[in-house]
Amino acid sequence: MELKKQITRIARRALNASRTLSNLASFEKNRILVEMAENLKGQKEEVLRANKKDIAAARAGRLSEAFIDRLALNEKRIEEMVSGLLGVARLTDPVGEEIKAWDVPSGLQIHKVRVPIGVIAIIYESRPNVTADCIGLAFKSGNSVILRGGSESLNSNIAIFKALDAVVKKNNLPPGTINIIATKDRQAINILLKLNDYIDLVIPRGGEALIKKVTALSRIPVIKHYKGICHVYVDDYADLNMAEKICFNAKVQRPGVCNAMESMLIHRDVAARFLPGMLKKFKEAGVEIRGCPLTLKISKERIKKAKDADYRTEYSDLILAVKVVASPQEAIRHINKYGSHHSDAIVTEDENNSREFLKKVDSACVYVNASTRFTDGHQFGLGAEIGISTDKLHARGPMALEELTSYKYAIWGSGQVRE
Amino acid sequence: MELKKQITRIARRALNASRTLSNLASFEKNRILVEMAENLKGQKEEVLRANKKDIAAARAGRLSEAFIDRLALNEKRIEEMVSGLLGVARLTDPVGEEIKAWDVPSGLQIHKVRVPIGVIAIIYESRPNVTADCIGLAFKSGNSVILRGGSESLNSNIAIFKALDAVVKKNNLPPGTINIIATKDRQAINILLKLNDYIDLVIPRGGEALIKKVTALSRIPVIKHYKGICHVYVDDYADLNMAEKICFNAKVQRPGVCNAMESMLIHRDVAARFLPGMLKKFKEAGVEIRGCPLTLKISKERIKKAKDADYRTEYSDLILAVKVVASPQEAIRHINKYGSHHSDAIVTEDENNSREFLKKVDSACVYVNASTRFTDGHQFGLGAEIGISTDKLHARGPMALEELTSYKYAIWGSGQVRE
Repeated sequence: MELKKQITRIARRALNASRTLSNLASFEKNRILVEMAENLKGQKEEVLRANKKDIAAARAGRLSEAFIDRLALNEKRIEEMVSGLLGVARLTDPVGEEIKAWDVPSGLQIHKVRVPIGVIAIIYESRPNVTADCIGLAFKSGNSVILRGGSESLNSNIAIFKALDAVVKKNNLPPGTINIIATKDRQAINILLKLNDYIDLVIPRGGEALIKKVTALSRIPVIKHYKGICHVYVDDYADLNMAEKICFNAKVQRPGVCNAMESMLIHRDVAARFLPGMLKKFKEAGVEIRGCPLTLKISKERIKKAKDADYRTEYSDLILAVKVVASPQEAIRHINKYGSHHSDAIVTEDENNSREFLKKVDSACVYVNASTRFTDGHQFGLGAEIGISTDKLHARGPMALEELTSYKYAIWGSGQVRE
Repeated sequence: MELKKQITRIARRALNASRTLSNLASFEKNRILVEMAENLKGQKEEVLRANKKDIAAARAGRLSEAFIDRLALNEKRIEEMVSGLLGVARLTDPVGEEIKAWDVPSGLQIHKVRVPIGVIAIIYESRPNVTADCIGLAFKSGNSVILRGGSESLNSNIAIFKALDAVVKKNNLPPGTINIIATKDRQAINILLKLNDYIDLVIPRGGEALIKKVTALSRIPVIKHYKGICHVYVDDYADLNMAEKICFNAKVQRPGVCNAMESMLIHRDVAARFLPGMLKKFKEAGVEIRGCPLTLKISKERIKKAKDADYRTEYSDLILAVKVVASPQEAIRHINKYGSHHSDAIVTEDENNSREFLKKVDSACVYVNASTRFTDGHQFGLGAEIGISTDKLHARGPMALEELTSYKYAIWGSGQVRE
């Protein structure tokens, strides 16, 4: 009960703060972001000290090395947070933009204007840098933010938060401008997700289990991506050299991320020419292949047979499912059935096949002749990224400042009444 | 269990159909919409016969006359559905529109393209015309639709649905293009709202209880408006003649709808001049007033005292809460605290006060010198309306065809890989 009161109070303060933040001038916000960056830099030692505590606890709890790597901060990672905040200060402020304006026969002048969403809650797992990144993006877009990080990184998150909140206080911004739920109590999420009277949007960032939990519990709109099961389809009209480079990049360059390729599809007419060399390169890079019967037949390596479940799995690792298909249409059907609507590519020199693939693959980002690894706010030229959405409502694909805004209609009349 | 299987099958078919619908040409969709209109007209007798059954059952169940009025169809109401479908056929198809396009330094060409959302479920109450209206809008925007109407109008809904579905079948559109949950079993909604693997969006249309239920149960994104607690604020710089006309229109012209005024706020410096005449006009129109202490003092009529709860109530009736405020800022604070973020207006000749009101009132539609009654897809020039959103995600204010779309990124490369 006490916790519920506490969290409700935080949410109510965040809502109050959001009223002020929505009307802050861009130059004010930018000046404060620069101060935040400077103060975070100045508080480096405190942050690293707090992080050491978290790491010690993680080691004592026998958490995996991969987990500890995500949790660990060092000079370089703090420097990245600092330059992230400075980068956000330099981005164009989306708030106040006139999206559209028109007159209607009644004489009303309707202006569709970009405004902040209001209060955004971010629920994330182990990476402490999310704390600074999300505060920067939410603040720049005029939203107040409530952070709920993983309990394993709580000390690190609090230290980062304090460095930024000191700037909020120094500048007399309203209390509740930025907020952190500083408890390890797992009930906190359940409480937070019911506060739809105060919070406008929840963005969960983490593994599938977290995202499913948030979706199931939340009464607040959620934007999310469950999985990144990305495909590259090598068409019979592909430049096979290009296809080899794209497939290799999509799988190997950073296999742990959501825009890495998990399944490779090849048109049967080029499979015999393409697969042996490709699979050899993958083998050299340590990629385990799970192939369809035709792949097994063509391959000169000894490879595992793919089960149906392999085509539905986000390995996030050096494992790849491979399937030979009879047509671009079969590739499209496979991707829509087994994929996660994230990022999928065709490699082809045929314009009709390109256009059909772009139209019919139901994914956030559909590529012709490029690696799926480009699905990223920075690579898209958005200057930042708060997540990637595989939903279709509000935001789809890489989300940055603009996706953290809503709009309102401002309407000028001269005494109009409705007949 | 049988019901769950049935509804899941409907949702799966809807998803399959949506793949085809998303790529239908505009002229095809328009031709089919015209055929739907004609067939609905042709099936008029069947629809009216089915409606008679529903009305008889409603009377037997002693449902209110207001309820039966919403349920009842006649020649005129069928004609409105028919012309609604023809109107949607004439609207511009939003699907395929290029929203934005840009190049990035890697050489990728990024196109942000408007696409259908996919599968939309509409959960509604007694008005059978929603069946035809929603089918028309969903079909035109390339979405498949699953309808779940009120059990009291089931016969009417099925008759309308059949008239339109015959056209779907005749034109060999995929099964699942339009769908109706034709059961009175209340479990159907619970099942439907868990099918987030198939359904992309739920739009509930009805009273607050329905909308709260849908929001609490759904794992699918919901767009909704709970209430319409709309305000008109009469500023000390108002043209009081204009203010009287606007307030009268906002309250009296159609008190049962969501964009009607529920609370009127008046600057104290003009209250003594404005209120007596205004309240007299309201009295003549049968409006019951509930006023703040100052209103009671100024008024020459005998009026009720407003309780705090009155300012939070959507009367949908000839009842009005009235409050005298000390400043535009107090009006803004009152609206943001007690309102429902739907539609609010200021009447003033002062540009600063106008701009402050437009910026700070956190509502979907904010008016200067016009009645709140204009919040409507048709009045906004959108040509249609599937609902009004008081949410801030995806769509805010009147929703028409464009709000039934999402987007995807279509990206053209020439062999790019990520370094």
